[in-house]
Amino acid sequence: MAETVTTPVTADVYVEVQQFYARQMRLLDGNDFAAFGATFTEDAVFTPAGVATLEGPALISKAAEAAAGRFDGGQPRHWFDMLTVESGDDTALHTAYYAVVSITSADGSNRLEQSVTVQDVLVRTEAGLRTGSRVIRRDDHSAAEAAG
Amino acid sequence: MAETVTTPVTADVYVEVQQFYARQMRLLDGNDFAAFGATFTEDAVFTPAGVATLEGPALISKAAEAAAGRFDGGQPRHWFDMLTVESGDDTALHTAYYAVVSITSADGSNRLEQSVTVQDVLVRTEAGLRTGSRVIRRDDHSAAEAAG
Amino acid sequence: MAETVTTPVTADVYVEVQQFYARQMRLLDGNDFAAFGATFTEDAVFTPAGVATLEGPALISKAAEAAAGRFDGGQPRHWFDMLTVESGDDTALHTAYYAVVSITSADGSNRLEQSVTVQDVLVRTEAGLRTGSRVIRRDDHSAAEAAG
Repeated sequence: MAETVTTPVTADVYVEVQQFYARQMRLLDGNDFAAFGATFTEDAVFTPAGVATLEGPALISKAAEAAAGRFDGGQPRHWFDMLTVESGDDTALHTAYYAVVSITSADGSNRLEQSVTVQDVLVRTEAGLRTGSRVIRRDDHSAAEAAG
Repeated sequence: MAETVTTPVTADVYVEVQQFYARQMRLLDGNDFAAFGATFTEDAVFTPAGVATLEGPALISKAAEAAAGRFDGGQPRHWFDMLTVESGDDTALHTAYYAVVSITSADGSNRLEQSVTVQDVLVRTEAGLRTGSRVIRRDDHSAAEAAG
Repeated sequence: MAETVTTPVTADVYVEVQQFYARQMRLLDGNDFAAFGATFTEDAVFTPAGVATLEGPALISKAAEAAAGRFDGGQPRHWFDMLTVESGDDTALHTAYYAVVSITSADGSNRLEQSVTVQDVLVRTEAGLRTGSRVIRRDDHSAAEAAG
């Protein structure tokens, strides 16, 4: 992964980012797609795995709602781990993390989707942190590519 | 979810809460139910999903031991994510998080139970943080309700 | 678990450890076994579950590469939780955590291996944190022992 020159952040910033993601994912998993979209900047660029890039809260919100159709009534939950947060030469925060979605059905079963890796650029606005850029890579695609 | 007026906590408090949960869950997953119960306050109110509210360490400990019977010799592990910690107008900490239990059997298989969401009130005592209130909502119940 | 006398660490140190693990696990999951080995000290002692103890970056790297063969082309991801970090009477950090590996295959399926518990000693070097000691216990082994 190409990286810009970055420096580690303080614990306060790291924890702020963790809580930002907690709220952002609760909105997404809670089907509050408009509020989820509003956690992105007006000019945000979102590149879901294998899908054309989306720009701005309205399109990101709409795509998230469409994507939630795959849960078929199950309750999705996003799980993140292995988070790094670095500040670049601008005021932005560069993050990277693992993510996976679990889907709990009404019968109590719980299945995992493929894992993904995510790289975000977060920007500080008057209303708090917002996602300015998100790129997702799917691990099943990586496994398929590795297999040739 | 109804929320009281709260403010974000410092990284030191957030990390203190994370380590409190790490120890509390190790006690639970390690079948040390008396010590698990002792991480709750004397007047703690615990509302497991779909079960009558339990009050106090002794009843909470007993219920945890009974609930562990469902693991049938497998080793449970609790996994938390998407944690937010806020301080209210009192001295208490209001937390919310996702949780899921994995169960590893002697044959090496590992299965996930349904995901849940949890809301705690943590209080600071002379002996450190204690859980004063816990409410758990099961995502399979939510999915069933959404399906009508 | 036997424990030495330890004291809690600051949030800055806790977050530093979290980011150390994030980078260490990305190297391992990314098949960069030489760089993974280099996150251990020269005299590091690594005790994988049910395997003879390995000493030093070269042997640890080699063992990690051999162990990755079990993924059979799938993409592994390590997930950690319930992390505690304490400083001992030396300058080392004593950590404990849960871990589990998910494996995403090219067909999009994602399976969990058995959960494990890990205890590390991390030491501070001129190049940053390094793992000086790691002991892994497998939960399927624990379940088998409990069953007698």
